[in-house]
Amino acid sequence: MQNFIRHRYSVRKYLSKDISNELLNELFETAFRTSNTGNMQTYSVIITRDVKKKQELLPCHFNQAMITEAPVVLTFCADFRRFSKWCELSNAKPAYNNFLSFFSAATDTLLAAQTFTIAAESKGLGICYLGTTNYMAQEIIDILELPSLVIPITTITLGYPDEQPAQTDRLPIEGLIHYEIYNDNKDIKEMYAYKESLPEMQKFVLENKKESLAQVFTDIRYNKDNNEAFSKRLLEAIKNQGFLF
Amino acid sequence: MQNFIRHRYSVRKYLSKDISNELLNELFETAFRTSNTGNMQTYSVIITRDVKKKQELLPCHFNQAMITEAPVVLTFCADFRRFSKWCELSNAKPAYNNFLSFFSAATDTLLAAQTFTIAAESKGLGICYLGTTNYMAQEIIDILELPSLVIPITTITLGYPDEQPAQTDRLPIEGLIHYEIYNDNKDIKEMYAYKESLPEMQKFVLENKKESLAQVFTDIRYNKDNNEAFSKRLLEAIKNQGFLF
Repeated sequence: MQNFIRHRYSVRKYLSKDISNELLNELFETAFRTSNTGNMQTYSVIITRDVKKKQELLPCHFNQAMITEAPVVLTFCADFRRFSKWCELSNAKPAYNNFLSFFSAATDTLLAAQTFTIAAESKGLGICYLGTTNYMAQEIIDILELPSLVIPITTITLGYPDEQPAQTDRLPIEGLIHYEIYNDNKDIKEMYAYKESLPEMQKFVLENKKESLAQVFTDIRYNKDNNEAFSKRLLEAIKNQGFLF
Repeated sequence: MQNFIRHRYSVRKYLSKDISNELLNELFETAFRTSNTGNMQTYSVIITRDVKKKQELLPCHFNQAMITEAPVVLTFCADFRRFSKWCELSNAKPAYNNFLSFFSAATDTLLAAQTFTIAAESKGLGICYLGTTNYMAQEIIDILELPSLVIPITTITLGYPDEQPAQTDRLPIEGLIHYEIYNDNKDIKEMYAYKESLPEMQKFVLENKKESLAQVFTDIRYNKDNNEAFSKRLLEAIKNQGFLF
């Protein structure tokens, strides 16, 4: 089982073959067994199959073709609304309009999403996560008609793979684990040496006319202006959905 | 594989049997293959085996015995420090001191943590997540000596199981999935009927002298005062670690 996960890769090109609701439900049954806070299950998943809805979502995900090409797009949302409604129906006063509840619901959403992807891959499906969900949360809220106390956390495209890409590199695990306390004296340069040596990374630097791979990240891919603008937008969306006051 | 996940349960009692570093590393190798934002791998894991460190962490986790009884406690942290240091060493200007970067790193941390737990359970280990990590983030930061741009996101206790508890209930999946748009007209009472009918839930209501199960949540387990106080503390910790300005 571990071997299977260890050799996984994200898939961005899918066959047109559809995914049955039966299979989807089976995967949800598995995903929803994931550990969660107080067994409140504070998440919902919006299933997008409709071509028009995919077209609406497309710009939210920076026009990445997999949104319209994948047979199924899943938006995993933190959802304290269902639980709060149940409280109100039970003569109880819910108070989940706060940041802790947002973060706890987001946590449970992400853990369930990850179990979903592992279950899906074990069935021969391919997936890709879309981080754009956090950049364009408000637009997605509008398109999927998410009410207050519901907010999109991550999106997954799902389908039968039409590509078998090479695995991407990873940092050596010694760089990522620490014994008893955080070790702030690790040799960073050494840790990144393999990544920097890869021909595809060197190509990346040349194509972007940068001096170093890190500059591709700081100046282009994840730059200050975008990070700050999208931070503001994400906090606004969290507030608009009632999780900050 | 799915069957295996579908029958899982959290484990809070462990045998004294130790876990080798070799096995731990194997599980990390698997976990760190998880999808992540821009392949930046913005997380770190602090491994606690030391008895004194466990004693220090114990009150942060509301004195739950599994902290000291489990052979290994893992604190999964969002970490933009390593990446930022690499940028600085590469003549690049990192700008990850913002909320988007916090949330993106937290996302990658949680996805990796969930893969870790599935890999661990596939090896016969038991795990339990501790949500207290978000309540007591600042105290954990101090104990584990986490520098700026590093913040604890979740904690897992890990060990060979010394119990085989019954699985907890789950809501029917139809309650949690939505087609194309959020369906705000689902029958909430019906969705929660099974949960409310369970003898252990009815006992829970009686023991806490409440009128309904929902009141146990709103008045005791996840009440307004705590939610609001811990929201403030969590936001403070995020700010102190340099992710909000």
